[in-house]
Amino acid sequence: MSTTASSFTGVIPPVVTPLTEQGAVDTASLERLVGHLIEGGVSGLFALGSSGETAYLTHEQQETVLETVIGAAAGQVPVLAGAIETATRRVVERARVAEKAGAAGIVATAPFYTRTHAGELAPHFRAVASAIGVPLFAYDVPVCVHTKLAPGLLLQLAAEGVLAGVKDSSGDDVSFRKLLLGARALGDRGAFSVLTGHEVVVDGMLLAGADGVVPGLGNVDPRGYVRLCEAARRGDWAGARAEQDRLAALFALVDAVEPGTASGTTGGLGGFKTALALLGLIDTPVVSTPMRPHTPAETARVRARLEEAGLL
Amino acid sequence: MSTTASSFTGVIPPVVTPLTEQGAVDTASLERLVGHLIEGGVSGLFALGSSGETAYLTHEQQETVLETVIGAAAGQVPVLAGAIETATRRVVERARVAEKAGAAGIVATAPFYTRTHAGELAPHFRAVASAIGVPLFAYDVPVCVHTKLAPGLLLQLAAEGVLAGVKDSSGDDVSFRKLLLGARALGDRGAFSVLTGHEVVVDGMLLAGADGVVPGLGNVDPRGYVRLCEAARRGDWAGARAEQDRLAALFALVDAVEPGTASGTTGGLGGFKTALALLGLIDTPVVSTPMRPHTPAETARVRARLEEAGLL
Amino acid sequence: MSTTASSFTGVIPPVVTPLTEQGAVDTASLERLVGHLIEGGVSGLFALGSSGETAYLTHEQQETVLETVIGAAAGQVPVLAGAIETATRRVVERARVAEKAGAAGIVATAPFYTRTHAGELAPHFRAVASAIGVPLFAYDVPVCVHTKLAPGLLLQLAAEGVLAGVKDSSGDDVSFRKLLLGARALGDRGAFSVLTGHEVVVDGMLLAGADGVVPGLGNVDPRGYVRLCEAARRGDWAGARAEQDRLAALFALVDAVEPGTASGTTGGLGGFKTALALLGLIDTPVVSTPMRPHTPAETARVRARLEEAGLL
Amino acid sequence: MSTTASSFTGVIPPVVTPLTEQGAVDTASLERLVGHLIEGGVSGLFALGSSGETAYLTHEQQETVLETVIGAAAGQVPVLAGAIETATRRVVERARVAEKAGAAGIVATAPFYTRTHAGELAPHFRAVASAIGVPLFAYDVPVCVHTKLAPGLLLQLAAEGVLAGVKDSSGDDVSFRKLLLGARALGDRGAFSVLTGHEVVVDGMLLAGADGVVPGLGNVDPRGYVRLCEAARRGDWAGARAEQDRLAALFALVDAVEPGTASGTTGGLGGFKTALALLGLIDTPVVSTPMRPHTPAETARVRARLEEAGLL
Repeated sequence: MSTTASSFTGVIPPVVTPLTEQGAVDTASLERLVGHLIEGGVSGLFALGSSGETAYLTHEQQETVLETVIGAAAGQVPVLAGAIETATRRVVERARVAEKAGAAGIVATAPFYTRTHAGELAPHFRAVASAIGVPLFAYDVPVCVHTKLAPGLLLQLAAEGVLAGVKDSSGDDVSFRKLLLGARALGDRGAFSVLTGHEVVVDGMLLAGADGVVPGLGNVDPRGYVRLCEAARRGDWAGARAEQDRLAALFALVDAVEPGTASGTTGGLGGFKTALALLGLIDTPVVSTPMRPHTPAETARVRARLEEAGLL
Repeated sequence: MSTTASSFTGVIPPVVTPLTEQGAVDTASLERLVGHLIEGGVSGLFALGSSGETAYLTHEQQETVLETVIGAAAGQVPVLAGAIETATRRVVERARVAEKAGAAGIVATAPFYTRTHAGELAPHFRAVASAIGVPLFAYDVPVCVHTKLAPGLLLQLAAEGVLAGVKDSSGDDVSFRKLLLGARALGDRGAFSVLTGHEVVVDGMLLAGADGVVPGLGNVDPRGYVRLCEAARRGDWAGARAEQDRLAALFALVDAVEPGTASGTTGGLGGFKTALALLGLIDTPVVSTPMRPHTPAETARVRARLEEAGLL
Repeated sequence: MSTTASSFTGVIPPVVTPLTEQGAVDTASLERLVGHLIEGGVSGLFALGSSGETAYLTHEQQETVLETVIGAAAGQVPVLAGAIETATRRVVERARVAEKAGAAGIVATAPFYTRTHAGELAPHFRAVASAIGVPLFAYDVPVCVHTKLAPGLLLQLAAEGVLAGVKDSSGDDVSFRKLLLGARALGDRGAFSVLTGHEVVVDGMLLAGADGVVPGLGNVDPRGYVRLCEAARRGDWAGARAEQDRLAALFALVDAVEPGTASGTTGGLGGFKTALALLGLIDTPVVSTPMRPHTPAETARVRARLEEAGLL
Repeated sequence: MSTTASSFTGVIPPVVTPLTEQGAVDTASLERLVGHLIEGGVSGLFALGSSGETAYLTHEQQETVLETVIGAAAGQVPVLAGAIETATRRVVERARVAEKAGAAGIVATAPFYTRTHAGELAPHFRAVASAIGVPLFAYDVPVCVHTKLAPGLLLQLAAEGVLAGVKDSSGDDVSFRKLLLGARALGDRGAFSVLTGHEVVVDGMLLAGADGVVPGLGNVDPRGYVRLCEAARRGDWAGARAEQDRLAALFALVDAVEPGTASGTTGGLGGFKTALALLGLIDTPVVSTPMRPHTPAETARVRARLEEAGLL
């Protein structure tokens, strides 16, 4: 059953998973990346998320990733772990493995591949939460799982103590505002951490009351997101906006791939990895099969974004 | 060809279309509603939008609506007119009728019903713009037309002088931020008005630099949206957020319909009409066939939202 | 209210709308095309369907098309008319115009552009049927209107006498089989004509009991579809299949456009028009803005398909 | 690399996975079910498919299933194994485990959860095929993976020897006919087995040239599908259609769940399991969390379908 989630605020980047040329987890690079993020001031780490390439990793690789991240974090910040699997029994299995490895919380989506009914969502999350002893976070990512988690459902599960928070990557603004208003109304009934996954509108989401952000781009520029959150915390909204505008311009590195030639996943996490390799923070920008690597021209575009943002 | 659009900022509500019990346009109620909106301080009016039930109205009814709104506005604020039709030739026809009737600008979507290719969008908007003498606004509403207008396309058409602005109801935050950054970068090459249709996140969108908002809920509470925009303009972001939170709570009136028993259109524009009838601003909450009216229980829920918001 | 539909069987092609270079309806070519189809042995004509480019035509153009087709058909075969509009009131208006022009039946879709609820579909079709004095056919085309008509709904409306038939372009095999089984079970309660719009699986659909087919490709090769239906009628399934295989190969002309450069609508109805122009049956292959014309290379591919099929 | 697939024709049911009340794999029931299918005359078995609840099973449970099915089949018919995982590396891992367990072929989908680009599909299937020594079958199931496998891609991979066949559950008739025509044109370049997953239109698909069918309903009535295929083989199309009509009526058991209260997966595989339990072929109709069991009223409806079909 979930416990308090009060510490899950601020910048919690979904850590990318560096790979060797042969496609193995590059643990040395991963440790270096974790160090970079913690030095950057992040308040938590999210391992095995979409940006962590989790859907491309075997269970064994996932365990290597999680152990490496938790080891490198060394208790300085909590580590959330994705347990992203097609249905309940599989999520529970991965969640237990992650808990045993030291994860401070588990992040799970709605079932996918299967056609999921709205009435199956509460039983799904209840079953996962009851199987673990750390907080459970819902990951609302319809672009991947093709199911939207309704705010009424999330708030009900928050009130029950099943969910400690949500990472919202749904792009549904109405739903997100409902969540924020509803979470505030929960009061004593449960700490519920509302995190946005939309890394280019964090200023507005913090203004609306979001507790934090899970930005893929935060791998590349953790300090930027930390400055953004700090500006928001002290009510410097012009400052928050200026920082967000800079980060939104930097985020254009996900569009470095030739239009129409690669998936959004390749453009996004491949772009982050290419940037991290250019910054010397990881050894290679290798992405998992069947994604393709960035071409030299695409890499040059990523480099240009880094230079414009003052990172290179 | 489009001319300057510099005046299209602030609150521009999509005016609902009051109907008589027999389904005719209730011009007396419509005039009253326009008066209410102008007194509320709106900076423009958008007739024949989705909230204006335009897809349910015959061309003759649409013309009645437009003449009534323009007549009642009497030049106090500009009136934009939707020319929402399946493809170019039909949009042009409606746009010319609207221009002749005195519309200050035309609002058009991507083609729909037909399967539309990305390469057809620029020719579509260029053909419409070249057929009229008032500014053209793109209406980005994938939930209705099942095509997303890419920010690169919109900015290209802005630079060409084809588009004077966009009403963004896409819910795509990344795209919206790109639009805002891109519109700023246009500089002298063209005034381009970026309006959000997402009425519950206006505070954040204004923080990010949006020029204005087209809120269906603005029919019910124009003063609230005007206060929100004014707070933003003077940099009072806490005030903007508080006003938005109040409006977001009021917006729950669109959820007054029994879950699963009506379309989002019925819940939304039917909810706005029910609220307006309760406020005495229009005579009936009648909606077009095949939508159904609100039940007494649903109407009571709308009333409760109005009371909580201090409007009744 | 609908009357008997027993004559709506066999091949009922959705007649394409030839245009002049200036985009006007080319009535002379349209008359020629109708003559070609009737000589080809079709049992009816469907004017103002998707293949008839109806979504691109103004109401005035639509009326010209309908008058021309009905005039050229001269009572030899019945003419169905599409009344394809966003919502009920508009469909009724168009349906009445078509009835007055002499249409033997009206074809209407679910509402589109608006978000439509399942509960709105029966009222929609009932309202249309009660406004006209000729049979009403439902057009099930989710790729265009983004709503699927459930077989239970269609059969209920058939039993009520609201619907005289359906043109199924949904690609939902399970649903189609249910329709066929259900229509048979209706017995005396109503003639209900189940027509498939899937022109490459007509053999299988006739085997399953379909009453007829509405093939866009039937513009190009009406005799082929007539032979296919006749083979099926006499139980010559090997013959039906061979004819269908030939037609399926011919249908590849819709793929003549360079991949990724045009919409399916352009490839499809643009391909049919290009073929008809090559066959000398219409004067130009012009399609409506914003669709683009076939390039010479694409036209050559259409020509190759016609030659392979023995039509040129 | 794939080898000949010539034996993969006829009826190859996707074997359901019986569970105990505690959710463990019920190997005794599974063995009984396999015996029932082989006695029913099926020509192969497909373990760990969608109907086999594979997305709900842990890897350990999947291995138990596969060993049980292969053991019970005892070489009488070949056993295909699903390796249904989010991306390439994971598919390869599962495929190798299955090959080692004795699977005669592997069935894999496009990547899912991740956003997949068309250009990634060929590398994906090539990587899987090159990692195994048994034939690879593509499983085209866009309703689950949200990617359609284009016939051109499949035929290219067939010509390369990468794919030995496809299970088409896409519901795209045009695509399926192209596959059939293309597979015939391959000639000596590769045996390519085109199997349909659409269990209610098998008569028409066999008429069109399909090599076989993978019917979930074949768990319940394998003899019916075998009779259907045999009728088709001897050209008795009226007989094939009559058998298909009977099976289509039986298939209505998937609609036994109260409308709107459960997913299609629950209605479908839950319906099959309920039927199998009623027939005494498996011990319980238990389905995996978060699916819900059939209610007594729903079970009664399944029973009625079985009785009408003469199975009970």
